[in-house]
Amino acid sequence: MTAPQRGYSATKDQLTARLRRIEGQVRGIEKMVDDDRYCIDVLTQISAVQAALDKVGLGLLDGHARHCMHEGARTGRADEVAEEMMAAIGRLMKRG
Amino acid sequence: MTAPQRGYSATKDQLTARLRRIEGQVRGIEKMVDDDRYCIDVLTQISAVQAALDKVGLGLLDGHARHCMHEGARTGRADEVAEEMMAAIGRLMKRG
Amino acid sequence: MTAPQRGYSATKDQLTARLRRIEGQVRGIEKMVDDDRYCIDVLTQISAVQAALDKVGLGLLDGHARHCMHEGARTGRADEVAEEMMAAIGRLMKRG
Amino acid sequence: MTAPQRGYSATKDQLTARLRRIEGQVRGIEKMVDDDRYCIDVLTQISAVQAALDKVGLGLLDGHARHCMHEGARTGRADEVAEEMMAAIGRLMKRG
Repeated sequence: MTAPQRGYSATKDQLTARLRRIEGQVRGIEKMVDDDRYCIDVLTQISAVQAALDKVGLGLLDGHARHCMHEGARTGRADEVAEEMMAAIGRLMKRG
Repeated sequence: MTAPQRGYSATKDQLTARLRRIEGQVRGIEKMVDDDRYCIDVLTQISAVQAALDKVGLGLLDGHARHCMHEGARTGRADEVAEEMMAAIGRLMKRG
Repeated sequence: MTAPQRGYSATKDQLTARLRRIEGQVRGIEKMVDDDRYCIDVLTQISAVQAALDKVGLGLLDGHARHCMHEGARTGRADEVAEEMMAAIGRLMKRG
Repeated sequence: MTAPQRGYSATKDQLTARLRRIEGQVRGIEKMVDDDRYCIDVLTQISAVQAALDKVGLGLLDGHARHCMHEGARTGRADEVAEEMMAAIGRLMKRG
């Protein structure tokens, strides 16, 4: 939980903190829409939330991939696990 | 506000409703992470939020583009407005 | 054709030159695959081509949007044109 | 090379064939630009090429992930390999 982080890896606490921030950003966008703020400024905030969500996604994927690589060969489920992971990455790339 | 909608266009009420739903989805993802839910399932939810945010972004952009096309020539700011819009689209495509 | 460019706008010659370069990059990726080059290096090249294609797409869209804003109100087709443009942007964001 | 394929996995021959098709599609887009074809139609082709490139990227990544999961634990390089893979996925998601 307190280990120094490299690349995209993230602790559960870090992921939770990022998601809470994202929740606040989404609320901010709701308020911007409600206040009829300039469209382009709202779009900039949406892009920021998407970048933050990508980062959460990559953090989760990183932990998953590390775990799978450590366990993969041992459990004999490497192919199944890789397939499932690729499908998730495909969805992230296409965004749903 | 109550006009029938085509394509990506959306009323302010629809955008607000979608953003409120997105806020709830983000809270759901926080809970999934807190509950140590299976990584791939969390990623699927993240992709769903990204798709929903894309839809809000396209809805906002649609209203903006329609407005600009109606006003553009009249105000003589067509180039400036197009440039600003392209920058916003570029950010949406790269997500931040 | 020789006008100074701002933001994403591009002349036909610039778009053609970029597409020719992209064609060469794709051929380079074919060769990398053929030579069994390290997967991660091939992926980096694919990302570079995607970024270059995004740039061509934004350049085309920019010219289109400028044209539409100049013509939109005049032709009375602003809504139709905006709808078509949003659909194209939606496809670019989801990549097909 | 001839094994039945599941999900995103692809043989070298399949990847080469897809890349050759993509190269042809890019040449087609060059011709469309040269012929002053309607912008929106060109954008649709660009989205198609990007989807095809995503598929090639996911195919390469799939092979890489499977290999890594089989070898990861054995070589003791699981963390390093996961980090490198996440960076590549991050670039694919942001497109360069």
